[in-house]
Amino acid sequence: MSWKPTKMEKCYYPYEDFLADTKDLTDKIDWKFDSIIAIARGGMSLAQLLGEYYDIREVYSINTIGYEDTTKLGSVKVFNIPELYEAKNVLIVDDIVDSGDTLVEVLKVLRQMYPTVIFKTASLFYKKSAKIAPDWYVQEADKWIGFFWTEDIKRKI
Amino acid sequence: MSWKPTKMEKCYYPYEDFLADTKDLTDKIDWKFDSIIAIARGGMSLAQLLGEYYDIREVYSINTIGYEDTTKLGSVKVFNIPELYEAKNVLIVDDIVDSGDTLVEVLKVLRQMYPTVIFKTASLFYKKSAKIAPDWYVQEADKWIGFFWTEDIKRKI
Repeated sequence: MSWKPTKMEKCYYPYEDFLADTKDLTDKIDWKFDSIIAIARGGMSLAQLLGEYYDIREVYSINTIGYEDTTKLGSVKVFNIPELYEAKNVLIVDDIVDSGDTLVEVLKVLRQMYPTVIFKTASLFYKKSAKIAPDWYVQEADKWIGFFWTEDIKRKI
Repeated sequence: MSWKPTKMEKCYYPYEDFLADTKDLTDKIDWKFDSIIAIARGGMSLAQLLGEYYDIREVYSINTIGYEDTTKLGSVKVFNIPELYEAKNVLIVDDIVDSGDTLVEVLKVLRQMYPTVIFKTASLFYKKSAKIAPDWYVQEADKWIGFFWTEDIKRKI
């Protein structure tokens, strides 16, 4: 993610909030889909829970590398594109849509590769300044979010 | 997973236990690896946390379909095999090694495809009757485990 804290407040996001927001997301998603793609790493836990909730075993992931620090400013490489030969409606999920660079590029690559598949997008957080809005999201991000999967595992017991 | 409850006790496995066991797993893993592959869906949350802990962005997933219910008894199809052209040491993770059918097939396919890469395996749970033991695991499974990612999201608030 390119979104770095400047003077923003850091906000810990515990598992309990993630669970409540994921349930909230399922209330908002008014669309039937057959497959889920997690943008790795951020969307992986979300994809797993959604797969369980909707009883969808077609849960995949996709990888991206951003080149913010190089001359290829803002460019994103997308790889490990899942096989979608039997998919019709695919939900792409991520923890946060920040700049939107990643989501834009993932959608572009997937729609080029699978022109007959319908792709929609969902995230827990969305930053208003992003260049693309997900079809569904739960919270607007105005703080630096310390997701439980980052914070909890690094904390000493 | 083919392992179905018969007369086994069902045991709820909350996020807190998952976190403690994941930390325990990091204490046990005495090996340096550069990439993580989650067996989807079960290994996805574990892979995300381990990726954060080890600061590894090369977190991928792989998919399998079991054919236990058909004539192709016990056979497993492996697909969405990640690109591993720069990987040397890869940790494959799953929530539970049950019959071992999935892990055996995933290892076979990956080792055939990437003969110079070293693959090792880790799981939270391991059933002694499995045909393969993971290199590292935390708990022996003697109950039917109700993982939080299955139970919590289906529970009404």
